[in-house]
Amino acid sequence: MSQIITLTTDFGLQDHYVSAMKAIMLGLAPEARHVDISHDIPPQDIMAGAWVIRNAAFLFPANTVHLVVVDPGVGTNRHPIAMKIEDQYFVGPDNGIFSLFYDEFEYQAVKLNNEKYWRQGVSKTFHGRDIFAPVAAHLSKGTDISELGDPMEDLVTYHWAVPIADKDGLQGWVVHIDRFGNLITNISHDLLGEVIGQNKVKIYVGNTMIKKVVSTFGDVEEGEPVAFMGSSGMLEIGVNKGNASRLLSVDKGAQISIVLKK
Amino acid sequence: MSQIITLTTDFGLQDHYVSAMKAIMLGLAPEARHVDISHDIPPQDIMAGAWVIRNAAFLFPANTVHLVVVDPGVGTNRHPIAMKIEDQYFVGPDNGIFSLFYDEFEYQAVKLNNEKYWRQGVSKTFHGRDIFAPVAAHLSKGTDISELGDPMEDLVTYHWAVPIADKDGLQGWVVHIDRFGNLITNISHDLLGEVIGQNKVKIYVGNTMIKKVVSTFGDVEEGEPVAFMGSSGMLEIGVNKGNASRLLSVDKGAQISIVLKK
Amino acid sequence: MSQIITLTTDFGLQDHYVSAMKAIMLGLAPEARHVDISHDIPPQDIMAGAWVIRNAAFLFPANTVHLVVVDPGVGTNRHPIAMKIEDQYFVGPDNGIFSLFYDEFEYQAVKLNNEKYWRQGVSKTFHGRDIFAPVAAHLSKGTDISELGDPMEDLVTYHWAVPIADKDGLQGWVVHIDRFGNLITNISHDLLGEVIGQNKVKIYVGNTMIKKVVSTFGDVEEGEPVAFMGSSGMLEIGVNKGNASRLLSVDKGAQISIVLKK
Repeated sequence: MSQIITLTTDFGLQDHYVSAMKAIMLGLAPEARHVDISHDIPPQDIMAGAWVIRNAAFLFPANTVHLVVVDPGVGTNRHPIAMKIEDQYFVGPDNGIFSLFYDEFEYQAVKLNNEKYWRQGVSKTFHGRDIFAPVAAHLSKGTDISELGDPMEDLVTYHWAVPIADKDGLQGWVVHIDRFGNLITNISHDLLGEVIGQNKVKIYVGNTMIKKVVSTFGDVEEGEPVAFMGSSGMLEIGVNKGNASRLLSVDKGAQISIVLKK
Repeated sequence: MSQIITLTTDFGLQDHYVSAMKAIMLGLAPEARHVDISHDIPPQDIMAGAWVIRNAAFLFPANTVHLVVVDPGVGTNRHPIAMKIEDQYFVGPDNGIFSLFYDEFEYQAVKLNNEKYWRQGVSKTFHGRDIFAPVAAHLSKGTDISELGDPMEDLVTYHWAVPIADKDGLQGWVVHIDRFGNLITNISHDLLGEVIGQNKVKIYVGNTMIKKVVSTFGDVEEGEPVAFMGSSGMLEIGVNKGNASRLLSVDKGAQISIVLKK
Repeated sequence: MSQIITLTTDFGLQDHYVSAMKAIMLGLAPEARHVDISHDIPPQDIMAGAWVIRNAAFLFPANTVHLVVVDPGVGTNRHPIAMKIEDQYFVGPDNGIFSLFYDEFEYQAVKLNNEKYWRQGVSKTFHGRDIFAPVAAHLSKGTDISELGDPMEDLVTYHWAVPIADKDGLQGWVVHIDRFGNLITNISHDLLGEVIGQNKVKIYVGNTMIKKVVSTFGDVEEGEPVAFMGSSGMLEIGVNKGNASRLLSVDKGAQISIVLKK
């Protein structure tokens, strides 16, 4: 086992919550290495967390354990789960947070109902500390996932809107805006290639029209909008040395249209 | 020794200040593990720091060293101190930052006046780097606390307002608001049990009245306010899948009244 | 080798970008320790990053590798570089981010053009993950810097405005404002000593006049402005237990005048 545990939460770092999870894990698995992916997921924004863990997870060495706690339903009847997907492990609530893996990958999931691997005296409002952290620590030490609870199949799944291809081109949506204001869309490299082929295109987003997909920021002048294949494999709209979201007044959820020039 | 050093400061992470403390500790105690509790304590807010370290400290393995630097009086005559409380060590300024331990626990405190354990060339404005970090590093390596300076007894102590019980019920205050907008009060589980026993209550906070204390968010409808015993052992007011501070317009310092129904 | 790798970026922590770099480094150099200096450099603010790494770097143990990615020109023809300065290593873009070292120190620089040390399938927009992180990992494992690419001499260099001494005194500028609102100037301890000697001075900043340089906050009353030699060796203006930037309405770039009283 590689003994790496990553943490992704919407807890922020002004409270003691993240350190409480780390403290519990340090008691149970003192050798495991903790890597913070993000604690700045917007509060209760499950799909924002889903996007971040989807992009980060497979970059890690085999057998990394990913603890993901964006959990607006803590204390309701949503299930705590653990999963194995490819060579990575995941622990968190069954509330859709792992949705962006399900269409692409096989998974093995268990419902966390073996209390032997929980902290004693589980609170009703902080399963991160009392269930998820201890389970992640045990997984990192080599506990088999099947020990943690019963197999489970029907997982809560959210879907992003799927891009729509028609005779004129392709409609997609902005699904994430990063710190630099880049607009990340749900149009993948493969889909774009399939639809546009060798055709020329016009790309409409907000009030702006962009005339082609280029490789990188430097292919346009400073301050100009630019469409390119981003490092996550999705079409992105940026502004060279600027903030596209702000300069183009485009927010998450906005539509992007790719029109084939015939 | 467990060789864990935690860090709690109001330094933020945009400057080099936190990494300066870590760099000094890495030079002196290369094996010690650093765990960030929070660097987002509001600038100079001693009681906010006191709350965070009080909640986090005892979750850590024995012999953890907690470096806590919220230090508006750096460069004045406030003393730098180290303490042992239960099986945990603490290093920081004697300015009330450890106040929330004093009523409940015995402590052994020393004034840090043995310059042998300081960095050479101490600045007047960054004791975190020049006194507290090196002392924490030495403690983590097994230096006995009594080596660090002279014993000290009268420590600066701040108190939260104490909840007031009367014939009608209980008056308390909101002492912390977390990232989710939950209102954390100074009314502990034990005190609440003592005062309300089996009685029914009405809870008034801001303009809202809540009719009972339940177990968790899921016991009320989405968007409804809810009173519950939080994971820190204090009465909290939240909103199921919402932000109580914002939705109820309640800030830190607000009063909460628990009225017994007779 | 000490096996420490520090990270300084403008990536923030809401996206997966920082963890992507760490994941790649964990795969290549599993033993190296990661220390976050800051990920809150304002987006694309090269000189803000230059200031932070200049202050932090030499506090670390010998042979620490500093990965610094504030890279508005990613995907243009700016070069990726590695450097050795004193006993520290640096990896990042050649865009001025290391400027604040060049006037004071000798350096050995190489252009990163040996693709053997890169990640396979380099993206055009995320060299942090695909070039800089793997190179930093290899350096931490003892790869000689000369293996990474060809020697390079003319590096992109930005300069802060240099303080101007004249017969009346000294004009300087506010080059950084820290989280506490302290105004950090480009007037060093040595320069100030040279110019003012034993003279009395008046210091003008914003609408405020300060009558002397003292040792620390505690030398003035609470709420009063104060001029002192900061922990970074530069003249700073603060307010005792207050925020100088806010209280004096002074922003980065403001002028500060030191007038000798004759």
